[in-house]
Amino acid sequence: MSGGAMHFDQPSGIITLTTDFGLRDPFVGVMKGAILSRFRAACIVDLTHDILAHWPAEAGFWLNRSFEYFPRGTLHVSVVDPGVGTARELLAVQARGHLMLAPDNGLLAEVIDAIPQAQVIRIDAAALASLGLRAASATFHGRDIFAPLAAELASGRLRPEALGSPTTQFVPSWLEAVVVARDCVSGVIVTVDHFGNLLTNIDAKWLAPMVEPHVYAGHQILPVRRTYAEAKPGENLALINSFGVLEIACAEGHAADKMGLSRGAPVSVRDAVRHR
Amino acid sequence: MSGGAMHFDQPSGIITLTTDFGLRDPFVGVMKGAILSRFRAACIVDLTHDILAHWPAEAGFWLNRSFEYFPRGTLHVSVVDPGVGTARELLAVQARGHLMLAPDNGLLAEVIDAIPQAQVIRIDAAALASLGLRAASATFHGRDIFAPLAAELASGRLRPEALGSPTTQFVPSWLEAVVVARDCVSGVIVTVDHFGNLLTNIDAKWLAPMVEPHVYAGHQILPVRRTYAEAKPGENLALINSFGVLEIACAEGHAADKMGLSRGAPVSVRDAVRHR
Amino acid sequence: MSGGAMHFDQPSGIITLTTDFGLRDPFVGVMKGAILSRFRAACIVDLTHDILAHWPAEAGFWLNRSFEYFPRGTLHVSVVDPGVGTARELLAVQARGHLMLAPDNGLLAEVIDAIPQAQVIRIDAAALASLGLRAASATFHGRDIFAPLAAELASGRLRPEALGSPTTQFVPSWLEAVVVARDCVSGVIVTVDHFGNLLTNIDAKWLAPMVEPHVYAGHQILPVRRTYAEAKPGENLALINSFGVLEIACAEGHAADKMGLSRGAPVSVRDAVRHR
Repeated sequence: MSGGAMHFDQPSGIITLTTDFGLRDPFVGVMKGAILSRFRAACIVDLTHDILAHWPAEAGFWLNRSFEYFPRGTLHVSVVDPGVGTARELLAVQARGHLMLAPDNGLLAEVIDAIPQAQVIRIDAAALASLGLRAASATFHGRDIFAPLAAELASGRLRPEALGSPTTQFVPSWLEAVVVARDCVSGVIVTVDHFGNLLTNIDAKWLAPMVEPHVYAGHQILPVRRTYAEAKPGENLALINSFGVLEIACAEGHAADKMGLSRGAPVSVRDAVRHR
Repeated sequence: MSGGAMHFDQPSGIITLTTDFGLRDPFVGVMKGAILSRFRAACIVDLTHDILAHWPAEAGFWLNRSFEYFPRGTLHVSVVDPGVGTARELLAVQARGHLMLAPDNGLLAEVIDAIPQAQVIRIDAAALASLGLRAASATFHGRDIFAPLAAELASGRLRPEALGSPTTQFVPSWLEAVVVARDCVSGVIVTVDHFGNLLTNIDAKWLAPMVEPHVYAGHQILPVRRTYAEAKPGENLALINSFGVLEIACAEGHAADKMGLSRGAPVSVRDAVRHR
Repeated sequence: MSGGAMHFDQPSGIITLTTDFGLRDPFVGVMKGAILSRFRAACIVDLTHDILAHWPAEAGFWLNRSFEYFPRGTLHVSVVDPGVGTARELLAVQARGHLMLAPDNGLLAEVIDAIPQAQVIRIDAAALASLGLRAASATFHGRDIFAPLAAELASGRLRPEALGSPTTQFVPSWLEAVVVARDCVSGVIVTVDHFGNLLTNIDAKWLAPMVEPHVYAGHQILPVRRTYAEAKPGENLALINSFGVLEIACAEGHAADKMGLSRGAPVSVRDAVRHR
């Protein structure tokens, strides 16, 4: 099924980077140098480098919610890698014309779970060796393994099929799956954004059938609004955000500080109509 | 007067971004993805994404002081948008061969006030609809409205004239205008920079006729120096900075912390000669 | 010896930037605008803008450890400049096919010391004047001097030889040199990275002859491991990091906070075998 809708057939030359490296040191800069050393025409875009250190789930969440805003043929590299230096392997995922690279540590599980047709490839040592790379001897895999791989793939010199064999075995997400019951959906807060909004892993689709959804978080019960502007300044609210997930916000305020909630806190949604 | 000195005739393909989105989340990254999806050859430059949340005045100040360091034909997109989700409209401004896009919330008033020949265009729904965009349904306007508009304009496929009609009506700046009296000029601190310097909205031109200008800020009276090096370490001073505005600094120190002043604090300049 | 291995013969068009400007203000953005105004095809990469304010030694350390990850022909601009506005001069260094520009304030001493064949050029006023630049009148040298110079050099329109005369006189590094005795090497912590790791100026080569090196830092004596994974969570360790220097880390923790050490703290390494 080469050339199918899932496949990475025409590289766009664009490479996105998602890491927990921060921007304080030149780690991201030297990764870009290593990419440009092999593929001078690369167009490199930072997705974010402020993923919570060593928490792949946040990177996977954002990657899953962001990748389709880039052109088909984009290569997405994500390095959040608490196991660097151990024997963990590398994965590539082809989905909807995009290609993703990451350690096999649960990071890509969000995308794989969301897109049943996604193809997962376990990158083998022979593929790395063909590029002169040896994972075992590298200590900064972002620069020494992922950057060269990305350059070869985004330039079209290396095809995803040459990376290794398709697999259905991979490390699952660090996030518990959303639990869906007849009139209640339960999930968790995945990340807190720059404005203090609390983003959950509860997809909009689970609220669609509800008549009057209410959100339970911390010790509060919040109505679901359409926009921030529907709440009064300082009032907490829930809404489906622009990335298609349930978000808890405070109108003109900082919800995380105000509600005392952060990553990992449980959130559930119930339909008030059914509970009357 | 098409082709005049003010007009955006030859797009350079460069797009600058100024927002209050921060760099912690992938918001800026997906805006870039949305631009590249429509205009693969775009050269996107971050001006800053650390504008104080929801304060358009700071973005307008920096945009006005920065845009001419880019080549003519550059498109400047600025999204600091406390009114997202409400009925606020969008503006485009043509000035000195550059084009700027922002919400009509006072952000562009600084540029318009500084350049009398600037042309202001109110972007109409028909122009958006011609690109398949509907502002009312979008919740992340940076990605869903501004990015596609920027791509079409910077690629030259859409002309500024097609955006809507020229207007003289727009939301004024959130900053009070500088008050100029015979021997006193009064303004405010607009922003505090990375080094703790306090930048005012008082343009260098107001100090030019003064013989011995002194700056009144907080409880201090400061001389105006030519460079930081003219003050002793730890000493507060005022100077005309490299962006042409009055700045209050502390030699080898952090003026904002030391003087306890921040955005919005009043600053005035008097000519000591006339006051003797 | 034009065309030698050290020379900047074929510009790659890539320009890296290393500064202490931060990303909060548009300082870096306008530097890029000034570069693009003269060289539209420049590929500009941020190395870091979070160098400790006014501490050139950290910039020089990172530049020395990073530049070779970029293609030959890359131009590296580094502006950490406590002396801006004074009479300090500018240097260019050619080394291994790369070209570096910085104030003559010790920043480039790390590279020069590490590469005996590096060629140092003192940039003269005539070279600046030929580009219409006058250092004395500029207040933001990154934008007004370094950016235009970088654009002319990276585009190939200006050759390094035209910048001025080779020199062997320059301001030395602000870091004390590593002291190497028969069985003890002494250095300092140069920087603390995003993960809290403490990076020293002690190169891997000094540990190579040791049989059982132990690191003395703060009040602790630490073994030298091969990877982070060889220590238990919460345990402090030392290792040779991916940039080839001795680093002190805390497995799954923040060494700087835990050990109470920061920039400038002394670190020494002794061979336990010889001390028994």
